[in-house]
Amino acid sequence: MSSLVSSRLHEDIWDNRLLLARLITEVENDTATGRDALEILYPHTGNAYIIGITGAPGVGKSSLVNQLALAFRKGTGKETKPHVGIIAVDPSSPFTGGAILGDRVRMRDLSGDTGIFIRSMAARGAIGGLARTTAQVARLMDAAGFEVILVETVGAGQAEVEIASLAHTTIVVDAPGLGDDIQAIKAGILEIADILVVNKADLPGVENTERALQAMLQLSNHSGRASSAGSSSTPVWEVPVLRTVSNKGEGAFEVMENALAHLHFLRTSNEWEKRQHLRIRDEVENLVMQTMQQHWMKNLPPSALDKSVEALYSRKATPYQTVKDLLKLSGFNFD
Amino acid sequence: MSSLVSSRLHEDIWDNRLLLARLITEVENDTATGRDALEILYPHTGNAYIIGITGAPGVGKSSLVNQLALAFRKGTGKETKPHVGIIAVDPSSPFTGGAILGDRVRMRDLSGDTGIFIRSMAARGAIGGLARTTAQVARLMDAAGFEVILVETVGAGQAEVEIASLAHTTIVVDAPGLGDDIQAIKAGILEIADILVVNKADLPGVENTERALQAMLQLSNHSGRASSAGSSSTPVWEVPVLRTVSNKGEGAFEVMENALAHLHFLRTSNEWEKRQHLRIRDEVENLVMQTMQQHWMKNLPPSALDKSVEALYSRKATPYQTVKDLLKLSGFNFD
Repeated sequence: MSSLVSSRLHEDIWDNRLLLARLITEVENDTATGRDALEILYPHTGNAYIIGITGAPGVGKSSLVNQLALAFRKGTGKETKPHVGIIAVDPSSPFTGGAILGDRVRMRDLSGDTGIFIRSMAARGAIGGLARTTAQVARLMDAAGFEVILVETVGAGQAEVEIASLAHTTIVVDAPGLGDDIQAIKAGILEIADILVVNKADLPGVENTERALQAMLQLSNHSGRASSAGSSSTPVWEVPVLRTVSNKGEGAFEVMENALAHLHFLRTSNEWEKRQHLRIRDEVENLVMQTMQQHWMKNLPPSALDKSVEALYSRKATPYQTVKDLLKLSGFNFD
Repeated sequence: MSSLVSSRLHEDIWDNRLLLARLITEVENDTATGRDALEILYPHTGNAYIIGITGAPGVGKSSLVNQLALAFRKGTGKETKPHVGIIAVDPSSPFTGGAILGDRVRMRDLSGDTGIFIRSMAARGAIGGLARTTAQVARLMDAAGFEVILVETVGAGQAEVEIASLAHTTIVVDAPGLGDDIQAIKAGILEIADILVVNKADLPGVENTERALQAMLQLSNHSGRASSAGSSSTPVWEVPVLRTVSNKGEGAFEVMENALAHLHFLRTSNEWEKRQHLRIRDEVENLVMQTMQQHWMKNLPPSALDKSVEALYSRKATPYQTVKDLLKLSGFNFD
């Protein structure tokens, strides 16, 4: 076991930024140290409130996230200020650059407040991998005493849906002037929203954007959520549509209040438990897949994969038969 | 074996749209019939030229794809017109609606030409699943005699990168007025581009968009591609930046010519072989994962997963140990 990780790690990591940063790197690199840390810390997690913020490029998510972090720091009504962790995930940057640039810009806004910890992550490898690593990084922050964790994802695709699924509350951000294209905000993304925010609300066209969102909300209420709304005993969450001008700091406090109201809703309905169970199930399934894949690759004879690829390329083999053979070569017999 | 699938399927499916459509559905539903069809047809594939078209929402990809299909139908210089297949993939719509709406709009533009076949696909399940299904649908079209296959993906995320990786030529579409946000077009997306298109080139700001793309291209040339550009014997592909106004039908012919030039480049360099090998390797690895997962789920005792999730939820178990136990329960011993 690495010297970073002892059985009293949950005490060591508490409010220790340097250790947290190191362990995040271990987890990102999927090392044995990182896995040990996650196992030891796991019983000390489950306390953080995780908020996902997503939306199409150009809506001003980053500045909204910054303002939201500052709002939580200014006060939630409790006596002690919560520590706020920010994880900025960029699934569309599988290569380099984006994450680092984003980091520098935000540092300017938030530096000086040691109660805020920021970490940027770019995609390495598969989507499932990024969602998993994001969840694990959030868990480290959770164990390190961050009561609020903001997970920001850029874009509006399947990756965002997966990453957002780790959040307790999901905020979907839109802005006026992104085009009246029916594709500007996706039905799929809208269905994961607990709170909708129209940012850049000082721009012309804000009413149109709001109206479009309301219309889409009603559409999705009429389909998916009709059954639960029918029963008077089940509490129902009405998705609010809020306005912000995040580069002027307007509206972030209201977003925070709505997020906390949503948290209260989750806690007083069976939604909290339901979402946590789904999240854990996803994580277990992903870890199972990862473990099997690693085992397969470790036990495959060298060059077996290369030979198979060559045979498929020249159309001398067929895909399913090849896969069967490759599994057998690693000791898997699935007949 | 289903009655749809005989050993002379490669003759039956040739130019038979109804059979093609049925088999696509089988493949989408991952049925035994679909898998049989893919195995039987595999030796008869590898002839289609696959073009990926991607870009952020609102740039007008669909109308560009339509125009490009019409350009290929009008003539590529060869005597016989190629058959053109279109696969419209919407990874950000994991639920319903988008794909079908898109289909209706395009039908209006392209109906009447029986040389064009359109199929829309929305995400079902995981990203990897969608990329795999897209590749398999392209393979069916390939076996059915479509010489050109256009794969359109909506959005600009990791999903698009994965799906685009099945293309021989990738066209990334941008448009003026999507905001000067540094995130409007992603470095990651740009790096997969073989051709850049500025659509809606009749809008103000087209020069700015072009300039931004050129600047980003030079940046990426200076990093990733410097080494191959240094050797004079290796042919190098210079990514062109083209203008189109696809709703007026302008520029699509030039895009086609550039695509064919890129195809020629691939064929006369070692890029074709390299890309095909990578593609096949990805596919094999994905199929291996899918097979292992199905085997795991089939052999897991009922309620074992539920019990594990409950223990993790109450923090009585830890993730990695749980995964080890669950694998053992299905007959996998990875110690």
